Amino acid sequence: MTDWETEISDSGEDAVIRGTPLEEVMDMEFADSIWLLLSGEEPSEEESEMFNTILSSSVDHGLGNPSTVSARTVQSGGNDMNTSVAAGVLALGDKHGGAIEDCMKMLQNGRTAEQIVEEYLDEGKTISGIGHKVYSGEDPRAQKIFGKAEELGISGEAVDKMKEIQEVFVKEKVELVINVDGAIAAVMSDLGWDYRLGKGLFIIARTPGLVAHVREEMDEEDFRREDGEYTGE
Amino acid sequence: MTDWETEISDSGEDAVIRGTPLEEVMDMEFADSIWLLLSGEEPSEEESEMFNTILSSSVDHGLGNPSTVSARTVQSGGNDMNTSVAAGVLALGDKHGGAIEDCMKMLQNGRTAEQIVEEYLDEGKTISGIGHKVYSGEDPRAQKIFGKAEELGISGEAVDKMKEIQEVFVKEKVELVINVDGAIAAVMSDLGWDYRLGKGLFIIARTPGLVAHVREEMDEEDFRREDGEYTGE
Amino acid sequence: MTDWETEISDSGEDAVIRGTPLEEVMDMEFADSIWLLLSGEEPSEEESEMFNTILSSSVDHGLGNPSTVSARTVQSGGNDMNTSVAAGVLALGDKHGGAIEDCMKMLQNGRTAEQIVEEYLDEGKTISGIGHKVYSGEDPRAQKIFGKAEELGISGEAVDKMKEIQEVFVKEKVELVINVDGAIAAVMSDLGWDYRLGKGLFIIARTPGLVAHVREEMDEEDFRREDGEYTGE
Amino acid sequence: MTDWETEISDSGEDAVIRGTPLEEVMDMEFADSIWLLLSGEEPSEEESEMFNTILSSSVDHGLGNPSTVSARTVQSGGNDMNTSVAAGVLALGDKHGGAIEDCMKMLQNGRTAEQIVEEYLDEGKTISGIGHKVYSGEDPRAQKIFGKAEELGISGEAVDKMKEIQEVFVKEKVELVINVDGAIAAVMSDLGWDYRLGKGLFIIARTPGLVAHVREEMDEEDFRREDGEYTGE
Repeated sequence: MTDWETEISDSGEDAVIRGTPLEEVMDMEFADSIWLLLSGEEPSEEESEMFNTILSSSVDHGLGNPSTVSARTVQSGGNDMNTSVAAGVLALGDKHGGAIEDCMKMLQNGRTAEQIVEEYLDEGKTISGIGHKVYSGEDPRAQKIFGKAEELGISGEAVDKMKEIQEVFVKEKVELVINVDGAIAAVMSDLGWDYRLGKGLFIIARTPGLVAHVREEMDEEDFRREDGEYTGE
Repeated sequence: MTDWETEISDSGEDAVIRGTPLEEVMDMEFADSIWLLLSGEEPSEEESEMFNTILSSSVDHGLGNPSTVSARTVQSGGNDMNTSVAAGVLALGDKHGGAIEDCMKMLQNGRTAEQIVEEYLDEGKTISGIGHKVYSGEDPRAQKIFGKAEELGISGEAVDKMKEIQEVFVKEKVELVINVDGAIAAVMSDLGWDYRLGKGLFIIARTPGLVAHVREEMDEEDFRREDGEYTGE
Repeated sequence: MTDWETEISDSGEDAVIRGTPLEEVMDMEFADSIWLLLSGEEPSEEESEMFNTILSSSVDHGLGNPSTVSARTVQSGGNDMNTSVAAGVLALGDKHGGAIEDCMKMLQNGRTAEQIVEEYLDEGKTISGIGHKVYSGEDPRAQKIFGKAEELGISGEAVDKMKEIQEVFVKEKVELVINVDGAIAAVMSDLGWDYRLGKGLFIIARTPGLVAHVREEMDEEDFRREDGEYTGE
Repeated sequence: MTDWETEISDSGEDAVIRGTPLEEVMDMEFADSIWLLLSGEEPSEEESEMFNTILSSSVDHGLGNPSTVSARTVQSGGNDMNTSVAAGVLALGDKHGGAIEDCMKMLQNGRTAEQIVEEYLDEGKTISGIGHKVYSGEDPRAQKIFGKAEELGISGEAVDKMKEIQEVFVKEKVELVINVDGAIAAVMSDLGWDYRLGKGLFIIARTPGLVAHVREEMDEEDFRREDGEYTGE
């Protein structure tokens, strides 16, 4: 048997979250409790407002994406809420919901904007956080996040570096905007979050959306199918 | 192929949550976005405060319970954040995290307190929401939730019925207190939530705790094992 | 901490499966090892042949069903083999792959064929194991399973009862054939399997199919999406 | 919507596995059906015997490992067979059950034994497939697999290279034996399996063990807990 120890929380009569009694946590906003739980400290008022914006920006995004399809499909197979939501969370792999963590990692790797762009171009990789299918001028959601970060005095090195990366990229390659993932990644970095929590924060933000979709699917009668075609001999 | 339709959200340029443009949702508190997403309407100030308390009360509860053990064990097998968090969500079955939904269902079934207690006693079942390992007088967290609900003008029929059920039970059987699950179930019922969202709301509240534990587990070197004993021939 | 004990297997130098040294198990056919692992005894030659037929009958069944869609969708989100296969297994709920267990439970509940049909008709439920979208005369796969069970001397009470149920149902209601799930459920019952292993045996049989689909999906470039429609206001 | 196509199988009346009608597949051994499903061809008699040995060698391995702990813990939270088995499959990440795929990848990377050992020593990595906690002379299960592969005329380049790698490693570093993962990886490579199926084959082999453990856990009354210690302030 291994030893199980944690610095996060205790249960029962002594229930605490990072040293704060659970009864005090119950007086906090949900987003602030999450911040405390993950960082060990309560957020300032500005950090709290920024964090609420980031979480709210990702609560849901239509039903076409892999996590929603997976959650609803599993529910339709005759499963409970927890099983179906978990199937949605599983879909949040490297290619879906992974751009924020990827971009945070890039911003936290200690290299200059020039080095980063050069490396990505050399390896033929796309840079997470820039590029958008629709917006060619500006991504209004990215601008909103940057605007609020500026206003709240949160913008710092990571936001600067993200903008530099985009500028270098435009010079070297092609005109692309910073998208909402890039803006979130930069601001979360300036808020002090380790990139290894990037995906986790996205999962926290998106779980409500998965719950909503599974609940809606419960009212559907049939199970989800695809009209696949067999192309073997 | 089945038709995929949703009343919850749209994506891309037209991104909305229940009709509200995503850019407006980004100005909402996270808990309010969740409320909008699940109910279709924005909460009042009182509803919002109550909802924050309920969500914050369940963010984490030590590392000994099945969902935390499962999430950390899967992480230790060499897995990513999404895979490990999902394994934790899977553990939230009927017996773990299910008391709130169970109790909401009981409170929403249209029977009187007397009928409910009689039925449970006849079938030898325990009543979700009453009974506590530690507290014999009062459960302070349950009291806190009831107090806030009273103060905010939210307490209604479900809270009354929950208290009645406990009183009938004490008279018929044995002195047991209303626990925090019972208080949450009653208040959530008075807030208008359908019991079929009970487990989902608990999953939303607890996912941050799972993320925190998986992140902590990433710093452990070895994988989790049990010293099981083989008792076959 | 709870005590962890098992009668199933031991590991390391003393590795055994149900008392048989792992090195001896390595000389057994895979299906026979599974039989030993789940029942505690080696199958007879006839049981082994029947069991191989049942497992092989369920290895895969096209890509349109929920478990395949879920596994491939999760893989397409950028996930590993284990995560994607697990998402497929999750989809195997009550409505998908559940007919065998359901039907076994019915055959093992100690009632007569008349009682069973009456109960199902009264409650307006469909009877698992009878009815087929395509075949109105006979389901050739069900017949193959019944034929082999007869030939191997395995057919017994459960097969008889399954046929009786179908006959009573035809008399009471409408002409429907026994389908392959019904045939498997009956034969597995006559082989002595507890219905609580019905779903588990289906999962064992279908996991190879999920692995095959996830491997095929790895060669697809894009992730899986649905063109869902937002029908909210 | 994406196009769903597959070369693996078709369903319904036209059910086939890789072009072979399902009714013919039903006459095959389970292991042979799996081989057909994954490779597109039926195995020779020798391939079939070897494949059965490899699958049977991994059906289960005690209850202490992460996948068993995870599956049983999730079951104990009040969940169905599919949900619990999936939680076990999730635990089969890079560090648990991943050695076979890792070692196959190494054997299939086109480098010489010297290059491989040098690279691993330079990077301070352990080589999957060599080293054993208990056996210092020979691992009897690895020997059994190599012996059978030799006898069946299956041993080829990959087995040779695995042995070379071990010899070079012993010369350069320290006396370590080839373990059962290394033997399986080498023989599976000589059987023509792509390393990207390594983990998948292990999942197929181990799923029966997970089903057995979940079924056993159903008879336990309490849910699984750990006596974790809170070490925060």
